[in-house]
Amino acid sequence: MRDAFHEELDQISDKLVEMSRLTGSAVSRATTALLDADLTLAESVIEADEAIDQMRRELDDTAIDLLARQQPVATDLRMVVTAMRMSADLERMGDLARHIAKVARLRYPDSTIPPTLRATITEMGHAAEKIVAQAGSIIAGKDVSAAVALETQDDEMDALHRQVFEHLLGGHWDAGIQAAVDVTLVGRYYERFADHAVSVSRRVIYLVTGEWAQDGAEIPGIDPGDDD
Amino acid sequence: MRDAFHEELDQISDKLVEMSRLTGSAVSRATTALLDADLTLAESVIEADEAIDQMRRELDDTAIDLLARQQPVATDLRMVVTAMRMSADLERMGDLARHIAKVARLRYPDSTIPPTLRATITEMGHAAEKIVAQAGSIIAGKDVSAAVALETQDDEMDALHRQVFEHLLGGHWDAGIQAAVDVTLVGRYYERFADHAVSVSRRVIYLVTGEWAQDGAEIPGIDPGDDD
Repeated sequence: MRDAFHEELDQISDKLVEMSRLTGSAVSRATTALLDADLTLAESVIEADEAIDQMRRELDDTAIDLLARQQPVATDLRMVVTAMRMSADLERMGDLARHIAKVARLRYPDSTIPPTLRATITEMGHAAEKIVAQAGSIIAGKDVSAAVALETQDDEMDALHRQVFEHLLGGHWDAGIQAAVDVTLVGRYYERFADHAVSVSRRVIYLVTGEWAQDGAEIPGIDPGDDD
Repeated sequence: MRDAFHEELDQISDKLVEMSRLTGSAVSRATTALLDADLTLAESVIEADEAIDQMRRELDDTAIDLLARQQPVATDLRMVVTAMRMSADLERMGDLARHIAKVARLRYPDSTIPPTLRATITEMGHAAEKIVAQAGSIIAGKDVSAAVALETQDDEMDALHRQVFEHLLGGHWDAGIQAAVDVTLVGRYYERFADHAVSVSRRVIYLVTGEWAQDGAEIPGIDPGDDD
């Protein structure tokens, strides 16, 4: 009984890793679509999000089925519930990548990113790819020390997000209101993407150690609920 | 055994109603703080969010405890899992109200909302209050027809959100870049707030009827994942 349970839990974990791979690919392609004003690429990102949503539904069905059949208690129960929360985070990350792609599509054939911000947005795209790749490795390896280190990665994203605001509000913005609105939203999408990746990796720490700073609590300053 | 289970489920439902009351109060006060540049009020909203977070933690602990002790299956199991998802939506709505209050605090003693947009933002605040109040009633009364009607409410918020963009991008914006950035973010916070309220009410439909458009799926165009 126990073995079957943990085998199924491993399958759920594999699916979470696969979801992280798909969201990483989505955010990478969305960034390119945005910077290159590539309509085909933007549309492929928008379309591919359904596969991530579908994977989340399957994962949650498996988890609920596992709860019903195996009736886990204590740590095992919390593991299954936590896996469902991770799938929600990853699905949302896919949505955010799709949002970035939608901005690219909306402004096609223009690129809405002014030349002075291209480097920063490129870096935000890289930071997003890196953080979700690391989150995937952390899930796969149940790697607590890497999960702790991931928070530094989020600091990098926050710093880039601040750069965007400094640029917008520094008094030299000459790209117009529409670009300001787009850049504000895109900046937030990247930041939220990274927040959810941190949330995923925090949940791995919880799964492995059973410890959360406060039981069941989100960590102030890191969790998606504390993103400004 | 069954009766104890449903009694406890009722207690969870009561807590969800209370959370909806608190988030409604938060978004109402945040709107006033934003429009009146009221620092004290803004800070009280920011501070009060911890109570909502705490309530979510308690609710989730109760739910997990219930799963462990009662080992529900089938519909009962899905009810508990769904309640946890609703608490996550409501907690996030509290966060969004806090974000609005933070914009008010950041710009104090100024109000960042230009006179030409005050009416629209006032209406967005009212729409947010109304939709969460309705979501609370829907949870309390397990009212499926009201849940279906709630989607109209979200259309109202979407229309207001479009008004904000039309105002920003109509070529007559003279309130500067900072106000444009603030208004873009604030508009998104209200929109997301309403999205999560719709999600809560959708979950009530699911709880009562056991039917989701696609089992376990979010509904395209309505769920928080499809907010643009």
